[in-house]
Amino acid sequence: MVQLTDTSEYLIAPDPHAARLSRVVSGVDHTGAAISTPVVEERPLTIFLNGTEIVTAMTIGDYPNYLALGFLKNQGMLAPGETITATDYDEDLDTIVIRTDGQTNYEAKLKKKTRTSGCAVGTVFGDMMDGLDGLTLHDTPVRTSDLYALAQKINRTPSLYLETGAIHGTVLCQNDRPLVYMEDVGRHNAVDKIAGWMLSENVHAADKTLYTTGRLTSEMVIKCALMGIPTLASRSGFTAWGVEIAQQTGLTLIGRMKGHRFTCFSGDHRLIRDADPKTIPDDPAKAGRKGAT
Amino acid sequence: MVQLTDTSEYLIAPDPHAARLSRVVSGVDHTGAAISTPVVEERPLTIFLNGTEIVTAMTIGDYPNYLALGFLKNQGMLAPGETITATDYDEDLDTIVIRTDGQTNYEAKLKKKTRTSGCAVGTVFGDMMDGLDGLTLHDTPVRTSDLYALAQKINRTPSLYLETGAIHGTVLCQNDRPLVYMEDVGRHNAVDKIAGWMLSENVHAADKTLYTTGRLTSEMVIKCALMGIPTLASRSGFTAWGVEIAQQTGLTLIGRMKGHRFTCFSGDHRLIRDADPKTIPDDPAKAGRKGAT
Repeated sequence: MVQLTDTSEYLIAPDPHAARLSRVVSGVDHTGAAISTPVVEERPLTIFLNGTEIVTAMTIGDYPNYLALGFLKNQGMLAPGETITATDYDEDLDTIVIRTDGQTNYEAKLKKKTRTSGCAVGTVFGDMMDGLDGLTLHDTPVRTSDLYALAQKINRTPSLYLETGAIHGTVLCQNDRPLVYMEDVGRHNAVDKIAGWMLSENVHAADKTLYTTGRLTSEMVIKCALMGIPTLASRSGFTAWGVEIAQQTGLTLIGRMKGHRFTCFSGDHRLIRDADPKTIPDDPAKAGRKGAT
Repeated sequence: MVQLTDTSEYLIAPDPHAARLSRVVSGVDHTGAAISTPVVEERPLTIFLNGTEIVTAMTIGDYPNYLALGFLKNQGMLAPGETITATDYDEDLDTIVIRTDGQTNYEAKLKKKTRTSGCAVGTVFGDMMDGLDGLTLHDTPVRTSDLYALAQKINRTPSLYLETGAIHGTVLCQNDRPLVYMEDVGRHNAVDKIAGWMLSENVHAADKTLYTTGRLTSEMVIKCALMGIPTLASRSGFTAWGVEIAQQTGLTLIGRMKGHRFTCFSGDHRLIRDADPKTIPDDPAKAGRKGAT
């Protein structure tokens, strides 16, 4: 497969040769021959909100500020309009502290929760679902020519996926243009990094499309909807609950996108079919990809 | 691809047509034609240890008892030899309570933790790492003929993966025999269900092999090592930290297993190369699979 040499369309493109993100590992192959191959890094990052330890995520380690901000935002732990007063990343301790201008609702809730049954993890998903109440996404039209163009560009963009495999990618797009391509060992981290970037840059969501290599599970669909992005596309498959939430929020949900094929289980009335699938080439052969399942 | 018709080798095989595990969803394809296709279910399960709410997992919903037991065991929340006195699953509330014969160390630790910084999530990974201290896995030989036979059988076993896609599988194996094949939307859930079954049935681990469709990340390798299983194989790729932990614990780690190919980044001295890779057929075409990335 021929990789793109010009990635100037991107505001942020992957940096597959950054020293901190992969490492050459030695072993043997099926014939017993010695081999050396780059493998993606994975390191812990513990996220604090003011004085409260929230979670330890396993991440490749780029953009810890966007990851922490996006995680807290997507989990409903930052109130709308809440001011971020500081972001303190400590590379040696693998910690990042997001400071806000007041106690958040989340901290009050957490205190109540820990008094009653111990730990607040179980409430988090409920909070995310609460955020969907009454949410209806913008009825933005989606050109199939744009979807095909995006998939082809993204698949050919130099990335850790093509370099090392074992990683997921998520790309924020507008029409046929990929804007921000984040990768991570956790597929939700990649989405959270996009959310953190959007929050930091105050980016308008209603005209965007989110493309992910990962599956369209409930959590992925919820995050996309909470981010206000009306279209979510993936080369992977669906879960029933993911489809249900997409239908409930008016999200256009497109999966199993490979070559000229795709499946749309929600919001197909927004599709403008301006591309003839017969003119779309098959995906390039997998040779050169390391398989990120 | 021809699927196996005889799965009597398994103690537990997937049940891809169980009514509760998938649902037919309707939508349109790339041509605009109406399609209906089975999609995997996904539902929350909140796990309690005695009086303490621990986590809400997203799961397909089969074997909640094995999932809860295995999760708690793999997170180091059950002491070795601790007696399980009851398992209370409530299908309507999506909850399961594991009851033990005493306060666990974890509960004491959680109480201390919640007094200091709020929530114990961040400590959990540290606890798992602590469990690896001084752990050296059994030096069990691994025949490559067995590995090839397992991969071929598992790939052809009727499963939700072949039926719906968007799901991961993990299989506990002995020599060339797959014993217990668990699937789940979360790849760690599938491993935890295996761990729960092993704990319930008091299964010997040192002569077993674990096969997973998922990536060989730190958490996957740690879980396998904590379960005492000396060999872990996957069709997917590696992370650097996963390789490091495998080398540290003496685990034989095999990835990118496709057709006659595989890569071994740890413990290759235990491989007995009794199969000629040239005689191993390529993986069957992906037609019929829905793509579970």
